[in-house]
Amino acid sequence: MAQQDAQNGGSENAAAAATVSFVAVKPQLLVEAPKANDAILFFKAAFGAEEVGRTLNPKRKAEHELPLILSAELKIAGSTILVADLVDDTSSPAKTGGNGVVLCLETEDVDGAVAKAVSAGAVAEGEVAEGEVACCGGRVGKVKDPYGFVWLFCTPGKKCADVEA
Amino acid sequence: MAQQDAQNGGSENAAAAATVSFVAVKPQLLVEAPKANDAILFFKAAFGAEEVGRTLNPKRKAEHELPLILSAELKIAGSTILVADLVDDTSSPAKTGGNGVVLCLETEDVDGAVAKAVSAGAVAEGEVAEGEVACCGGRVGKVKDPYGFVWLFCTPGKKCADVEA
Repeated sequence: MAQQDAQNGGSENAAAAATVSFVAVKPQLLVEAPKANDAILFFKAAFGAEEVGRTLNPKRKAEHELPLILSAELKIAGSTILVADLVDDTSSPAKTGGNGVVLCLETEDVDGAVAKAVSAGAVAEGEVAEGEVACCGGRVGKVKDPYGFVWLFCTPGKKCADVEA
Repeated sequence: MAQQDAQNGGSENAAAAATVSFVAVKPQLLVEAPKANDAILFFKAAFGAEEVGRTLNPKRKAEHELPLILSAELKIAGSTILVADLVDDTSSPAKTGGNGVVLCLETEDVDGAVAKAVSAGAVAEGEVAEGEVACCGGRVGKVKDPYGFVWLFCTPGKKCADVEA
């Protein structure tokens, strides 16, 4: 997959972030908890999706029999989609307001990507955070663009794994 | 890009559609008209997106100075996203209820894909239609899955072009 330099931006004060590059774009579908597993079964039945990885949420709720899904990675037609249980009380950057699909942009420079998006007109949501969050962990930042779409920036390479939390 | 056979479905009466295969998954971002062009400029500035094609809406509204965007194709990090002006009074299958991101699955067998998704639990929205609609034309079907996500099925190959409508 080709890396592209994010250099054709028109913003003025993004010089420091001009070299931000992205390695992948992955739609993440946020499913009302605890239905993500059911949704994955549906995506397999309806679209022939193949699950290639799953990370469970370490915060298991007592009332849920099964651990919630932090992020599952599915392949459809060579493309990746991510599926996650949306937990209302989470502080995860994946938490979103109403829109069930966010777009994950993988980059080695999460902070630079947030800065560049903000300089182009997006609004940062929360702080860049480390740890077990959406997009399979690593460093994650979140912005909402001027048109209402939510974008996650996350470090690539840390693959989803079948980790029991 | 690998083609995958959508054969690992668990539904019972989808035998006829068992061979539906998909060639691409493309998130489509629906922007409140007429702001799709502004959104594309933002995606270029913030993410280094490269526009590779644009199809204009043949139904130009008098109050809009610029023709609306039926579908623009952007590349970010080798992945494709589609951007469209969302027109409230359109009968386009791209019209959606509240969620600004739909997922386009390209397939040669749009009718089979709709049938298979419905047999797995999705609800068809509208009829499969021909013509200048989302996903750059061709045959288009639309379903809503049991988790609220909208999926478009459309024929691949008909590229977005710089067509003045």
